[in-house]
Amino acid sequence: MQNEKIGTAPDARTNHFKSAEILTIGTEILLGDLLDTNAAWISGRLAALGVSIYRHTTVGDNKKRITAALEEAVSRADLVITTGGLGPTSDDLTNACLGEAAGREMVEYPEARRHVDEMFKRFGRTPTQSNYKQALFPEGSELIPNPAGTAMGAMLELESALVATFPGVPGEMKGMFEETLEPLIKERSEGSILSRTLWFTGIGESALAEEVQDLLDASDPTVAPLAGQGKVRLRITTRAATTEEAEEKIAPVADEILSRLGDYYFGEDDETLESAIGKLLTGRGETLALAESCTGGLLAKRLTDRAGSSAFFTEGLVTYSNEAKERLLGVPHELLVQHGAVSEPVAKAMAEGVRKTAGTDYGLSVTGVAGPDGGTEEKPVGLVFVGISDAEGTVAERLDLSAWRRSREAIRERSANRAFDLLRHRILLEGNKT
Amino acid sequence: MQNEKIGTAPDARTNHFKSAEILTIGTEILLGDLLDTNAAWISGRLAALGVSIYRHTTVGDNKKRITAALEEAVSRADLVITTGGLGPTSDDLTNACLGEAAGREMVEYPEARRHVDEMFKRFGRTPTQSNYKQALFPEGSELIPNPAGTAMGAMLELESALVATFPGVPGEMKGMFEETLEPLIKERSEGSILSRTLWFTGIGESALAEEVQDLLDASDPTVAPLAGQGKVRLRITTRAATTEEAEEKIAPVADEILSRLGDYYFGEDDETLESAIGKLLTGRGETLALAESCTGGLLAKRLTDRAGSSAFFTEGLVTYSNEAKERLLGVPHELLVQHGAVSEPVAKAMAEGVRKTAGTDYGLSVTGVAGPDGGTEEKPVGLVFVGISDAEGTVAERLDLSAWRRSREAIRERSANRAFDLLRHRILLEGNKT
Repeated sequence: MQNEKIGTAPDARTNHFKSAEILTIGTEILLGDLLDTNAAWISGRLAALGVSIYRHTTVGDNKKRITAALEEAVSRADLVITTGGLGPTSDDLTNACLGEAAGREMVEYPEARRHVDEMFKRFGRTPTQSNYKQALFPEGSELIPNPAGTAMGAMLELESALVATFPGVPGEMKGMFEETLEPLIKERSEGSILSRTLWFTGIGESALAEEVQDLLDASDPTVAPLAGQGKVRLRITTRAATTEEAEEKIAPVADEILSRLGDYYFGEDDETLESAIGKLLTGRGETLALAESCTGGLLAKRLTDRAGSSAFFTEGLVTYSNEAKERLLGVPHELLVQHGAVSEPVAKAMAEGVRKTAGTDYGLSVTGVAGPDGGTEEKPVGLVFVGISDAEGTVAERLDLSAWRRSREAIRERSANRAFDLLRHRILLEGNKT
Repeated sequence: MQNEKIGTAPDARTNHFKSAEILTIGTEILLGDLLDTNAAWISGRLAALGVSIYRHTTVGDNKKRITAALEEAVSRADLVITTGGLGPTSDDLTNACLGEAAGREMVEYPEARRHVDEMFKRFGRTPTQSNYKQALFPEGSELIPNPAGTAMGAMLELESALVATFPGVPGEMKGMFEETLEPLIKERSEGSILSRTLWFTGIGESALAEEVQDLLDASDPTVAPLAGQGKVRLRITTRAATTEEAEEKIAPVADEILSRLGDYYFGEDDETLESAIGKLLTGRGETLALAESCTGGLLAKRLTDRAGSSAFFTEGLVTYSNEAKERLLGVPHELLVQHGAVSEPVAKAMAEGVRKTAGTDYGLSVTGVAGPDGGTEEKPVGLVFVGISDAEGTVAERLDLSAWRRSREAIRERSANRAFDLLRHRILLEGNKT
């Protein structure tokens, strides 16, 4: 019902948003006690919608500073999105500051009061007087429904900009953004903005950029690279009168990129290496088991981050001690003595052992020196072996991640990415044979 | 040598920094492609040093907007820290904008040119002309050495503020901040600022706050709470002429807090539940093995995030399938059929099974419905059982995390925190008996 009201508001159709600013409100974020993930998330959404972003600003829970930041933001941008400061305590000042900046009285909205009552009823609790503060908004605001929490948001024209206030809880903010503001931005936008993200691994950012430099230099569709932890993505973006037209503009560019870089490609948009493996295995009715040493459960954790992994993932053995490698995976004692736990023969024996004991189609193993201590001249920090076993046999690859020897986390994440990518290639290879 | 120069600069001793702003420069961060972790890290350091923070601002790689943001920041604060925009490409504009704002010429610093040469030599490469852009700084700047990369930073007085520029790469920025700016802030600060953080779990933020409300209301030392994923921390901060004096002011407050909340306390400063367990077990020469189902390796991953875990952690079995629970942990088939995998008897059998097969002192198990799908009326999303087995016997606890049923991640993280805390209490209990 709120959505309908917003859609038919007289101001809502006039012109599209050219520029936006994001204002994060909260002392906890300002002092570094809490990481602001909202600004990045909203920016990503706005960028995909074709709205330029001018600035992010973070201020604490301080009336003067919030109001000043709001006034500055509306003087530069025509859409200002705030997160935080919508709670029931005296520190929550966002809507009051918006009223102050707009010269509007704070009034109680009956639907917001009802919403507070309903949410409290759902949790079997009784609201106190301070909870009804969340029903107060600057006069003339349109409310943003919040199905997941008590704090509704407000939209209000301030100078020539629209200000929209959201709670700081990411789960609440995201739903409200997607259900209320995103449709409004799309409705106001001239035509359709579309993005497709292609993911690559096994190639560095500069090597990848060289392959598609002509496309990176093109202005429509734009193609932008971004790299991290052994993965690179290319985002293709364009604007057109309709979504179909935008799709038609993007498709040949994506095809061209894939014809040059297809060997390194593993998926689109929110695909991860582990979700790509999950799809491949589920589609083929095949299964996987893991044997991890230096990654200590990271591969298993990543495979199970998303629901549905039980379709292909049966077990993961984190064999941290050598004794566990022998007992659980059947790695021969002599192999460990002769070559050490971080070696190609042991990586192979781990992959083969877990595949046999688990009775899966694939066995994947990782053993290495994650550091920051424990390296030797022969086996430095960053030396990692990945083993893969399937019905065709068992292979291993040696990784040299010594460039990241200062970061245990980087070595573990990159080992996982490389292991997943090697497995992916192996599965694809098997698929081509049959 | 740079440090010495800074220390003896005439401006450096005049007055302490009262307020700071952080300016993040980079289109990738503005567009949400990259999360800004630098601002939070710097803020945490500044807060610990007793410097108030007014604002964080993020702008893209745009000369006008960077310069405007710099000028605004120095009009409000007396210390402005920038990150990003110090690279060799045409998009890297920070130092040029600082020169513009200060009305200073850009000049080449011979020591910076030598630094570029040395860094390239170390990597066996040859710099191009564009790399020497990183030797250009506004005239009169003091340079900030960067042992980990080519980009040195600059410090320059602008109006009544000091501006310090840092690269965006966190690993480089942090080292430079700690080696150059932090000593300068300490030198300029009146006396010593000290913080101690106490960590609690098993108690909610509001219940904890009620217990220490009088201390939260006090102004020196200040005590500030922060909560997340089932853990709460209290930070005690004070300022005194010397570190020893500050310690003496904080100690009685910490003692008072612990006398009231000791049951929930698990460590100080960078302690985590898993590092606390690691210390306890290592100190007692005892060992732990894990049997995980819904957490899928998260507990093992967290235990091995820090080096040294091999001293007490031998293995973790991620038994995702029921068959794996039977084969690896010896969970009786009938138990799984009768009670289901998510049940108290199975949690107990898993903990007992892993302790026996691994031959460790403790076995810890987690089984539950992490969601977002797969819940039933009888076993809803968020129902989790934790099992603990030791020489004294085996116990299990039922967790109701259904309030977080929308977030698989929250259920998994909270399950891990609760499991670690239950284990910690069990270890302490055993310790008291002997």
